[in-house]
Amino acid sequence: MHLFYTPDIQPSHPQYFLNEEESKHAVRVLRLELGAEVQLIDGRGGLYTAQIKDAHPKRTILQITNVITAYGKRNHYLHIAIAPTKNLDRLEWFLEKATEIGIDEISLIICQRSERKEAKTERLNKIITSAIKQSLKAYHPVLNEGISFNKFIAKSFDGQKFIAHCEPGVKLNLKEELRHGGNCLVMIGPEGDFSPAEISLALDNGYKALTLGESRLRTETAALEACFEVNFLNR
Amino acid sequence: MHLFYTPDIQPSHPQYFLNEEESKHAVRVLRLELGAEVQLIDGRGGLYTAQIKDAHPKRTILQITNVITAYGKRNHYLHIAIAPTKNLDRLEWFLEKATEIGIDEISLIICQRSERKEAKTERLNKIITSAIKQSLKAYHPVLNEGISFNKFIAKSFDGQKFIAHCEPGVKLNLKEELRHGGNCLVMIGPEGDFSPAEISLALDNGYKALTLGESRLRTETAALEACFEVNFLNR
Repeated sequence: MHLFYTPDIQPSHPQYFLNEEESKHAVRVLRLELGAEVQLIDGRGGLYTAQIKDAHPKRTILQITNVITAYGKRNHYLHIAIAPTKNLDRLEWFLEKATEIGIDEISLIICQRSERKEAKTERLNKIITSAIKQSLKAYHPVLNEGISFNKFIAKSFDGQKFIAHCEPGVKLNLKEELRHGGNCLVMIGPEGDFSPAEISLALDNGYKALTLGESRLRTETAALEACFEVNFLNR
Repeated sequence: MHLFYTPDIQPSHPQYFLNEEESKHAVRVLRLELGAEVQLIDGRGGLYTAQIKDAHPKRTILQITNVITAYGKRNHYLHIAIAPTKNLDRLEWFLEKATEIGIDEISLIICQRSERKEAKTERLNKIITSAIKQSLKAYHPVLNEGISFNKFIAKSFDGQKFIAHCEPGVKLNLKEELRHGGNCLVMIGPEGDFSPAEISLALDNGYKALTLGESRLRTETAALEACFEVNFLNR
């Protein structure tokens, strides 16, 4: 059954009009006809079943037949702040995989040693949207615009805050530290790691140093490892 | 320090001759000179430190100054059998990430519903080799040539065997089942899943049905999830 991402639909709506692009896709490409069943997700937990009431190529009308709210609601909150990789493919892979595994929020942080100083979130958001449709998730992870490390560090976060880095020193691990069912934020640095000054600033701002295992991981692999660990520990 | 992958070196060798391609790379590209220090990995656990004795662009001579055997030896054995994805990028991504996280052996299995019936291992092996160099691992995961599901299922494996599938039914999970420090084999099917006949055949051959969580995962994501879980549980 085909799935549409329609963030503007509300659970109370008895019917819904697909926009021009989606109507054309439904009627001309998918060749859906009167009575065909489709699904809609609103990105806020709503999963809707609908039937085509009018297969108009510019303004398809859907009759909503069922609504599930809080579909697949997650039992914990995970925010990963990652330094965008020089090669955007790697960042896109991370966003797709993290969305499949489970994530609530992603921030892009520009660090002292970042090779990439900016990343356009419009295209990155499309990767996330495709991933939620493909993996049938009704919640759309939030992607924040790039921000400097210093600005990000100063933002408040109600939960556990961790910074994963490769400098020597005492580090905690999630298996022992993570509070299940809570809010967790993990910062992942660029390929050259966070600078000692950045690590220091993070620790001064309530972040705890974190290890993600013994292997030397690329930025996007470390970010996904953190995502795996938090989701796995929260099962 | 630059790292070379030299599978033909032995721990007993007092010196080593780089081949033509690597000599040219060392001398013309990296511009290494007499006395420069480099590292070598042999793919079987050996991590060697060496000094350049003769910076010849076709036949660089290295003096071995230190040998570590069993560098980063893993404390468990993981074999993942994965149906090659239609899009080879996805399979390559999995090989790179699994190598970073930790894996011993990968088999390519051609299933009833596989969209890709073959995959050239030469290029795939290069992905793995790059990944061990980048993540400083001295063991080179083994990649086996494509084989049909039925032929693979009949092969013996001394350890726990799991098949991850999406059909309904009772499934075990690694958190409870995995014997730490042992040998583990996980089969991951194509995008269309294993067929009921394949699942049946696997169960008849000592495989146990496995769940990798509640999310609907792509083939390569499921394979990496399995890789992550086994490594994490063995820490």
